[in-house]
Formats: sequence, structure tokens, C-alpha cells
Amino acid sequence: MRISELSRRSGVAVPTIKYYLREGILPPGERTSPNQARYDDGHVHRLRFVRALIEVGGLSVATVREVLARIDSDEANLDLRLGTVQKALLPSTDGLSGPAQEAAEQEVVNLLEEYGYRYFRDHPAIASLANVMVAAQALGHNRFAEHLRRYVAVMPQVGVIDIDYIEQARTIDHMLESVVVGTVLGDTAIAAVRRLAQTSESAKRFPPRGSETPGP
Amino acid sequence: MRISELSRRSGVAVPTIKYYLREGILPPGERTSPNQARYDDGHVHRLRFVRALIEVGGLSVATVREVLARIDSDEANLDLRLGTVQKALLPSTDGLSGPAQEAAEQEVVNLLEEYGYRYFRDHPAIASLANVMVAAQALGHNRFAEHLRRYVAVMPQVGVIDIDYIEQARTIDHMLESVVVGTVLGDTAIAAVRRLAQTSESAKRFPPRGSETPGP
Repeated sequence: MRISELSRRSGVAVPTIKYYLREGILPPGERTSPNQARYDDGHVHRLRFVRALIEVGGLSVATVREVLARIDSDEANLDLRLGTVQKALLPSTDGLSGPAQEAAEQEVVNLLEEYGYRYFRDHPAIASLANVMVAAQALGHNRFAEHLRRYVAVMPQVGVIDIDYIEQARTIDHMLESVVVGTVLGDTAIAAVRRLAQTSESAKRFPPRGSETPGP
Repeated sequence: MRISELSRRSGVAVPTIKYYLREGILPPGERTSPNQARYDDGHVHRLRFVRALIEVGGLSVATVREVLARIDSDEANLDLRLGTVQKALLPSTDGLSGPAQEAAEQEVVNLLEEYGYRYFRDHPAIASLANVMVAAQALGHNRFAEHLRRYVAVMPQVGVIDIDYIEQARTIDHMLESVVVGTVLGDTAIAAVRRLAQTSESAKRFPPRGSETPGP
């Protein structure tokens, strides 16, 4: 198909497609003349994937480029490929250091031990979580650490759901894509469901005055 | 204190402080001469708050400006103020329409009914969650809807934790700030704990070869 049909089928505007081609996010089509190329269903799928990561998941173009390079790599070891893909989806923890950060990281590790998590000490999410604790402490929100403890207690249930999702993939390519979709769209989905759960819990605790349906 | 000390105490660089002053994110200090102003502890706190939202929570400067304007408003009705602050923290759902989006929104509403959520039909998180479903469907990830159902089943536990956190605030200003800190830093914290839970669950299901500590 030509670029105009690729645009129609993927819902991505032609100038954006050209930008993705220049950025190497979309592989080039097959040249049919100096000014035209032919695209296939693989391009449609790739564009939908990129669009989901950027528009729905809020990822930057730079992060998407890195994730795709790792998915497309010809590394034969699946564990390694999965690991590098997952790593590209973690927030950067560059520049996080200092005594407050280190103390908070130790606090996170203690929590993980207490709740039976298997972890490795340099998992970037440990530094990321510690960074949140330090920011909350600087604001005088000293109860936030207790709040995090309760998240740590609940989240293994989400871990089970997420790994179930990845495990059901039938092919390696589908598994790699499931990791990305599950992680990125999963973050957006969880943030949305969390807000709905907050609204619901709030409505149950503080029923709006004049409410006609007291509910259960 | 002068701007140099404000910078030192808040950890925010002087040019960034000047930018926040121009953007109206930081209220002006008390003028002591045409080129100098004096700042107080309120400015230090506000800067730490802004920094946490932008650097740790990943919010845009525009969103922070809007959130702060709503926190600072002199609206007397607390429910209204809380509502507008929370609304500023939701992703924009402008431009989400079409039959696929509408069908997915109905599916989300059905899920909320099924799991006993209290909700209002135009809650932006419903459109946001439906948007995730549509994106997953377009990628052929048809199992994603089932995956979301499991999130909806688990997240009321997080809603309880979050509302407990807000409820413990002693003053109205602290409550408003707790809503923002809990929501924004909470999203970052949950994404981090989720990745740790995934790693842990994955390590339990697929123990690394050559592992010396088989664990429980």
C-alpha cells in the first residue's frame, strides 16, 4: 500500500509517518520509484504499536526508539532480550545519590525483604521508589513511608496478573510485544483504575449530601 | 532569605527559580530593592513541592501551574476545591470518540458495576481506560480486556490505602497537598513497586538457571 493508505489504516498522519521513518522508528518501505514506496501490514501494526506507546502510554519518541531497537535485536538469548526491553521501560535513575537517597534505598530493600519479594539490589525501581520517599520527606509528608509499605503489601497481586499476561503469549515476538504493551498500557490502565477506585472509596466513606441512592 | 539561599535550601537552580517566578508557579518574594527580593520558608516548601511534581512525578509545567492555581483558589467549598484539584491531575481525554471508544467505555462501565464501584458516568478515567482497551484491540491483544478485569478486581484495595492517606491530613491545606502528593508521587511509586513485583513473580516462576538460593 502507499503512504496515504498506511496513514488511513493506522490512523497516523502522513507527516508523522515521515517523521517516524526519518527517526528509524518505522522501517522503510519497499522503493517503487524515487518518490514512492510500498508498505505492508507489518508497517500498519508497527505504527499502531508506536502510536499506543506514545499517545496512550505517554512514552517519549526517544524511549520508543530504544525499546523498538531492543525488540528488533537479533540477540538469540530470550532472557537477555526480555531484560533489555524491560530495562528501557524503567525511569532513568541517573544522578540519584546522596545520604538521604541511600538511606531511603535501604528502607526500600528492608520492605522488600519483609514482604518476601525476590529482587536484585541494583534494580532501578529501588532507586526510583527511594527517590519518591526522599521527595515526600522533604515536603514533611512523613506518613508517606507507611503508605508505601501498604503498596508493597498489595502489589504482588498485580505482579501475578502481569506475569500471567506475558506467559500466555504464543511466540517470542508476541511475548516481547506483550511485555511492552503490558507494562506501558498497563501503567496507564492502573493509573485510571486507581482513580476510579479512589472516587469509589471516597463516595462510600463520604456519601454526597442529598444522594438518593445510598447503595450497599 | 535571598534567591541564592532559596536555591541552596530547595535544591532548585537559580535560573529555574526565575523561570518559575515568570510562569507564576512561585509567588513573588517581598521586594527589598529594584533588583532584589526576600523569600521565606513558604517559598522553600513551594519549590520542593513543584520539584517533586515535575522531577519525581513527571508532570508538565503547565499541569503544575493549573494544579497550584486550584490549590491556591479562595473557593470556600472544600469538596469543590478537592474536585477541581483532582480533575487537573487526570489525563486529558479530549478527542476520544468514535464507535470503538464508545463500546469500550460501556465495557468499562459494565466492569465497574460488576465489581461494585461507585462512579459517575463522565469520570475522565473511564474514557482513559477505554482508550487503553481500544489501543490494545487495534494491536490484536484481545486478552487485554480480561487483564483489565483483574486490575479492576484488585484496585479497590489501593483506593482504601489512598483515601486513608488523605483522610489523616489535619488541615485543609495539608489535605489538598496530600491529594496531589498521594496521586502524583503515588503513581510513580506504584509503577516502581509494580516492576519490583513483576521481577519477583517472574523470579519465583522461572528461577534463574544456576541459582544457588532456591528460596521458599
